Amino acid sequence: MEPIKGFSKLSKEGKIEWLINAYFNGDSTVIERLKSYWHADGKVQKLHDEFIENTITNFYLPLGVAPNFNINGKLFCIPMAIEESSVVAACAKSATFWLERGGFKTSIISTKKVGHVHFSWSGDYEELNSWFDEHKQSFVDGTSELTSNMRARGGGITNLQLINKTELDEGYYQLMAEFQTADAMGANFINSCLEEFSKILESGLDVSELEGELEVIMCILSNYTPECLVRAEVSCPISELNVDPGISPEEFANKFVRAIKIATIEPYRATTHNKGIMNGIDAVILATGNDFRAVEACAHTYASRDGQYRSLTSARVEDDTFTFWIEIPLAVGTVGGLTGLHPTVKFCHELLGNPNAEQLMQIIAAAGLAQNFGAVRSLVTTGIQKGHMKMHLLNILNQLEATEQEKITIQKAFETKVVSHKAVVDAFCKLRGVNNP
Amino acid sequence: MEPIKGFSKLSKEGKIEWLINAYFNGDSTVIERLKSYWHADGKVQKLHDEFIENTITNFYLPLGVAPNFNINGKLFCIPMAIEESSVVAACAKSATFWLERGGFKTSIISTKKVGHVHFSWSGDYEELNSWFDEHKQSFVDGTSELTSNMRARGGGITNLQLINKTELDEGYYQLMAEFQTADAMGANFINSCLEEFSKILESGLDVSELEGELEVIMCILSNYTPECLVRAEVSCPISELNVDPGISPEEFANKFVRAIKIATIEPYRATTHNKGIMNGIDAVILATGNDFRAVEACAHTYASRDGQYRSLTSARVEDDTFTFWIEIPLAVGTVGGLTGLHPTVKFCHELLGNPNAEQLMQIIAAAGLAQNFGAVRSLVTTGIQKGHMKMHLLNILNQLEATEQEKITIQKAFETKVVSHKAVVDAFCKLRGVNNP
Repeated sequence: MEPIKGFSKLSKEGKIEWLINAYFNGDSTVIERLKSYWHADGKVQKLHDEFIENTITNFYLPLGVAPNFNINGKLFCIPMAIEESSVVAACAKSATFWLERGGFKTSIISTKKVGHVHFSWSGDYEELNSWFDEHKQSFVDGTSELTSNMRARGGGITNLQLINKTELDEGYYQLMAEFQTADAMGANFINSCLEEFSKILESGLDVSELEGELEVIMCILSNYTPECLVRAEVSCPISELNVDPGISPEEFANKFVRAIKIATIEPYRATTHNKGIMNGIDAVILATGNDFRAVEACAHTYASRDGQYRSLTSARVEDDTFTFWIEIPLAVGTVGGLTGLHPTVKFCHELLGNPNAEQLMQIIAAAGLAQNFGAVRSLVTTGIQKGHMKMHLLNILNQLEATEQEKITIQKAFETKVVSHKAVVDAFCKLRGVNNP
Repeated sequence: MEPIKGFSKLSKEGKIEWLINAYFNGDSTVIERLKSYWHADGKVQKLHDEFIENTITNFYLPLGVAPNFNINGKLFCIPMAIEESSVVAACAKSATFWLERGGFKTSIISTKKVGHVHFSWSGDYEELNSWFDEHKQSFVDGTSELTSNMRARGGGITNLQLINKTELDEGYYQLMAEFQTADAMGANFINSCLEEFSKILESGLDVSELEGELEVIMCILSNYTPECLVRAEVSCPISELNVDPGISPEEFANKFVRAIKIATIEPYRATTHNKGIMNGIDAVILATGNDFRAVEACAHTYASRDGQYRSLTSARVEDDTFTFWIEIPLAVGTVGGLTGLHPTVKFCHELLGNPNAEQLMQIIAAAGLAQNFGAVRSLVTTGIQKGHMKMHLLNILNQLEATEQEKITIQKAFETKVVSHKAVVDAFCKLRGVNNP
């Protein structure tokens, strides 16, 4: 096989043609399969194509909804884009459970974003620091055109600091800037400001009388935003925790708190525990056109902030009350990026009542908490596999191209049996009277 | 608004109807918008609907491809499902750059998966430990039916250990199991084994003469798999790092190594740095039907394993050679889950030559390394905004519904200007001769 030159310059059809010839022996049925996933309206498809580069088709993620979320007294139906079974069901089940027990109480703790110009300076720190103090305003003034729109919306640069990091690495300094970005996630805004700061820093030091050499290494926002923080909580009298006939409310409450404690003290468990939280969070992040890699990186760094990786949720039993809560950094936007462009994202924002960024943070935190409640509830009662396996069974049956009648028969047979791929294939073959391949 | 009862039991059409009445004043055009995203073939759509619960439509993620990946001497065109602009372009650019410089060298370090039965035991540890040593084989035997298929494929349970965690919490123990899961990610397999272990533990201790009370708190695999590890590396003589006319190869190499060092010592930077790596990794994880929440959680816990959150990539300059590498835990599957069900996932596996799990780990690691090379390369040369802003500009113009001619005119005008939302809207309004709203 030969490498391809100028691939990005080819038309979509040209790209696909090369692909099919290079990797599928020119099999035109593959082209048809790809095309069958295109939107019927060419203009809509073009819009989706242009979100990224080298697009050849759409990757379908199922969009599900979890209704009955009572968040601060308002009812939400939360859109979730996710490929994993059981997540939407668990979220919806938790929402309904808490609907009758006071719902989710959420609040914004803070909304600070940060970014850095990382640079090295060979001269004296004290001199640099004095110079910076004197010239701080020039950084604000020099970016006033860039920030005017954001300032009009109540955001902008809220703090600028010179940070001495020479203990970590010789000559390493940061110009750390803090931002409020209103309803935007703010990545482009912050990065543009930072790149302008670096120009101001370069030209300012150039004409100064300071001795020393400056090298700007890079300018970049930080996805770690521990002070862009939201809280969601559920709470009820222990006696109302009648989740399962097999376990008393008191027993459930204590076992639940114990499970959260384990996720707090044990990194192997904490990782999976937080993964479950992110199942709920990422599904809403995706549906609302936000960036799940940014949210993931931030959440997990936050989970490791005290030197050990720990649970993002907490639970306690106090007097007769059970309380379960999450505090999680979520830097999200409701304007900019895909939010105004992707038609399904627009729909999801409408479904949520066109929330602003702070409202969206709270909705997402509630979804994460609901998800985690559902997962831990399953884990400490029936076990995680019961629900999972019901869906897994259906997936295997679909893969085997079972008929509706066959599905019903086999699902019934597995109500009391452990689902494994082998057992299902065996049952299916037996039902059809064929030899197991 | 009223909560809804029995929502999950409604048909898809019934769910949508409720949604539209409850949140869209019965606006039937919203139904049409949702339906326009359904696959034309009802049978295919039903398949996608059944992946999760309460599905109402498909969420389109663009599927792009990055060709020219030379991995261990073989040429790959890597499929990437992602909504963020510039990621596929950066990956493809890095692939082509390294194509001419020896390509990506990758290797598997280990493939161990783990899971735990978390339980409390009120009796004596030494007695429990002796009992466990005596009865270890019964755990293996008691799961032999569950593991038979996996053993036939070369996997299975490879180790069982009783772990005393009473220092962390009173009476807290783990039955920790290690697994090899061949080409499956293995979550269902592992969880099924663990739930069976817990039954064996319960019934075994029940008939034993040990004094003490057992409570199984939960059985669950760990998504933290630090020993399911892959390595990818690129390397070339420094003189070949002619990436940009504005910077010499030596200067670039040193600046690049410095940028990686900063991401290693500074958690604010490390978070964003690793987020960039995950841009590349998650896009392939999604396209190949794997679970990005699991991979994210694991990667970030791994990044914080020594008590401080750090970069997942490393770089060095030694003699005249530049080397850049990643070591990252990746628990992925090429069978099971969505891999055999989602038609686009199947296509992506075919495009990659139907790799096994170990091969897929290596492809994904190469994509992550390529992505990071592209991001850091931009950061230390032209800045991240130049490429981003080109795409951002196009997005804004699409949002404004600019014509092709208008797009060309404004893109030309912004070749030398900083792109901000405001500046583009201003230019657009000026071009059209309308008042800026």
